[in-house]
Amino acid sequence: MTAEASLPPVIVLVRPQLGENIGKAARAMLNFGLTEMRLVAPRDGWPNPAAGPAASGADVVLADARVFDTVAEAVADCPHVYATTVRKRGVTKPVVTPEQAAGQMRSASGRSAILFGPERSGLETDDVALAREILTVPINPEFGSLNLAQAVILVAYEWSKGEALASPPEVVLDPPAPQEELEGMIAQLDHMLVQANFFFPPDRKPTTQRTLRTLLTKPGWSSQEVRTMRGVLSALAGAKAKRSG
Amino acid sequence: MTAEASLPPVIVLVRPQLGENIGKAARAMLNFGLTEMRLVAPRDGWPNPAAGPAASGADVVLADARVFDTVAEAVADCPHVYATTVRKRGVTKPVVTPEQAAGQMRSASGRSAILFGPERSGLETDDVALAREILTVPINPEFGSLNLAQAVILVAYEWSKGEALASPPEVVLDPPAPQEELEGMIAQLDHMLVQANFFFPPDRKPTTQRTLRTLLTKPGWSSQEVRTMRGVLSALAGAKAKRSG
Repeated sequence: MTAEASLPPVIVLVRPQLGENIGKAARAMLNFGLTEMRLVAPRDGWPNPAAGPAASGADVVLADARVFDTVAEAVADCPHVYATTVRKRGVTKPVVTPEQAAGQMRSASGRSAILFGPERSGLETDDVALAREILTVPINPEFGSLNLAQAVILVAYEWSKGEALASPPEVVLDPPAPQEELEGMIAQLDHMLVQANFFFPPDRKPTTQRTLRTLLTKPGWSSQEVRTMRGVLSALAGAKAKRSG
Repeated sequence: MTAEASLPPVIVLVRPQLGENIGKAARAMLNFGLTEMRLVAPRDGWPNPAAGPAASGADVVLADARVFDTVAEAVADCPHVYATTVRKRGVTKPVVTPEQAAGQMRSASGRSAILFGPERSGLETDDVALAREILTVPINPEFGSLNLAQAVILVAYEWSKGEALASPPEVVLDPPAPQEELEGMIAQLDHMLVQANFFFPPDRKPTTQRTLRTLLTKPGWSSQEVRTMRGVLSALAGAKAKRSG
């Protein structure tokens, strides 16, 4: 049977060191609609006064964060556990990108959890052993230096793509003006260019006119934009008339 | 035949405030293989001693960063300019996600530039007017709080994804003219319109100029087309001069 909509993944910070980084991770999560954070043995205890300011308003994530003693307890209710690491591990497990993991999590039934290791050292082999798959961000092999919040934001961003929030604000562009409006503008310009002796030598006139027509058709200007351009042309023609009059 | 591989995009930080954030942006770039940073009028000058430590080893990006006075100068050699913004703007331009922009940049001929605004305020309307498209990260509508380095890393990450498998564009169109050629044309028209008293009343001048800029940026005219348009303008100006002379 078709599963109900998949639940958003749980972000599990394993032995995080700095409260500031916990706050930044919370902000990164909430930016992309993730709200459930779990902390495994945070080094400086919990709550941590440095976390709030760094969260820049994502306090709801911190307020709801739950603390566990072990990774196993933190993910006890999650059938799908990913271990995030940028380094190769002596563990033989499937390796997926954030994009692939996001796809799996969206189609999975049951909760997914993503483990992130301590800032300095990353996840221990024992933590990784607990996961079903390894999540690796493909990174510049000569400069791999993702911090905790950056790793969290890339994973959250990929997950959000399949969600409702993941659409840019639609800007409805005005449709191109009807052809006759475009023709009016082209005729106006053409008339001015004849006055200005632009078409020289005369036998090149058809080719040059075609070039201009192509060029002025390319933009797909709206009716408003065509009116603006006609205003520009009128101003230029008017200035000319005034000066020569 | 197949086109050469597209060049990596240029990251342009417009009026960045804190050196620390410039350093973090450099780190985010290098994580995903981007190395060319340009700075427009950094608030505290350049170099900035706070940038290095925050770059966590991405010093090569900072060392090669170039500084410009204006956005137009910073993107003068780039035919494809994206303005990054999380807010809706009173500017009617196409809006793309980081993923869509990455696809476009990979298949584009010519250099792409991505503008990022100051930390506090984001890009000004005038900065956005200069871009061909708006790049928006789809974000939690109830909590949109991306910092500079986070915005940079998401864009860099998306670009890095398809790097190995970039495929050439199906139809080879002439690429849009580099920004400086477009600027030259706009300046020429602007000068003519000042002569013609087009900007009236004077307090509407900035708005009208922005409208014209958007209108003339929309077509994506090639270098040849921009030259043709400049010939048209010169002819109209010349006719006027001749008549009034």
